[in-house]
Amino acid sequence: MRNAFHDELDAIGASLLQMVGLVKAALSDATTAILNADLALAEKVIASDAAIDAIQHDLDARTINLMARQQPVASDLRTLVSSLRMSADLERMGDLAHHVAKQARMRYPNCAVPAELTDTILSMGRVANAIIEKLAVSMEHRDTVRALEIETDDDEMDSLHRKLIAALLDDNWSHGIEAAIDMTLIGRYYERCADHAVSIARRVYFSVTGEYVEISD
Amino acid sequence: MRNAFHDELDAIGASLLQMVGLVKAALSDATTAILNADLALAEKVIASDAAIDAIQHDLDARTINLMARQQPVASDLRTLVSSLRMSADLERMGDLAHHVAKQARMRYPNCAVPAELTDTILSMGRVANAIIEKLAVSMEHRDTVRALEIETDDDEMDSLHRKLIAALLDDNWSHGIEAAIDMTLIGRYYERCADHAVSIARRVYFSVTGEYVEISD
Repeated sequence: MRNAFHDELDAIGASLLQMVGLVKAALSDATTAILNADLALAEKVIASDAAIDAIQHDLDARTINLMARQQPVASDLRTLVSSLRMSADLERMGDLAHHVAKQARMRYPNCAVPAELTDTILSMGRVANAIIEKLAVSMEHRDTVRALEIETDDDEMDSLHRKLIAALLDDNWSHGIEAAIDMTLIGRYYERCADHAVSIARRVYFSVTGEYVEISD
Repeated sequence: MRNAFHDELDAIGASLLQMVGLVKAALSDATTAILNADLALAEKVIASDAAIDAIQHDLDARTINLMARQQPVASDLRTLVSSLRMSADLERMGDLAHHVAKQARMRYPNCAVPAELTDTILSMGRVANAIIEKLAVSMEHRDTVRALEIETDDDEMDSLHRKLIAALLDDNWSHGIEAAIDMTLIGRYYERCADHAVSIARRVYFSVTGEYVEISD
């Protein structure tokens, strides 16, 4: 019985990792789409969001079902509770990739990102990608050291976000209000994505240790 | 044994309602603070966020503890799982009120909201308040009709948000990029707050019926 239970627990972990993979691809594609005004890729990201949502629904149903049937305690219960929360964060990260892709589609055939901000958005995409990769490793191996590192990696995203806002406020900004609004929102989507990764990383930590991460901010 | 369990379940419900009350007060105060450049009120909202976070931690610990000790099934398990998710949404709504208050503090002694947008922000605050009040009723009475109404109420928030963005893009906008960035973010905070209320309302529906709300968007 315990073996069957742990098989199901492993399967839930595998589905969470599958969600991480889909979110990583969606955000990476969304970044390419918005930097290159690539409509087909934007549409692909927008369409993929339903798949992420579907996995979440299925995963949550299995998690709750497993709680009801197996009545886990201690570490196993923490793992299941954490799974429910992680899936919610991952679903939201998928939404944010979807928002970036919708901005790309809305401004097509123009590029939503002015040339002088290309590097910043590229960097935000790269930092997000690196954070999501590290998150996958920390989830797969219940690696609390890597989970805690994501807090620091998020500082890099916040720094890029400040750089983005500074560019919008610079006297040389020549793209007007609409582009400034677009870039404010796009910047926020990346920043929030990293915040959700931090939140998941904290749940990895909680799931493994039963303790909350001390938050210094 | 069942009575003690249901007492604890009631206590968890009461703590969730306490969170709703604190979030409602925080957002209402944040709206007043940002419209009146009221620094003391902004500081009060910023300080109150820690109390909301503390209730969430305590509530989640009690919920997980109750799951482990009582091993609930069916409706009771759904209620506990939903509680965990609702507390996360409420905690985030508290964060968003905190963000609005921080914008008020950042622009003090100036007012972050230009005069021509006062009515729109006032309306966004009122709609948010009405949604949160309805949410409290639907949570307290497990009222799925009211829970579903919140989906429609959120449309009003989305409409106000579009009106806000249109004002920023109007040729008559004379407040420059910085105020446009501020208002883009403030508008998004209110819109996201209403989204979280919708999310909680969907969990009320799920908790009562065991079914997910069909989402039409």
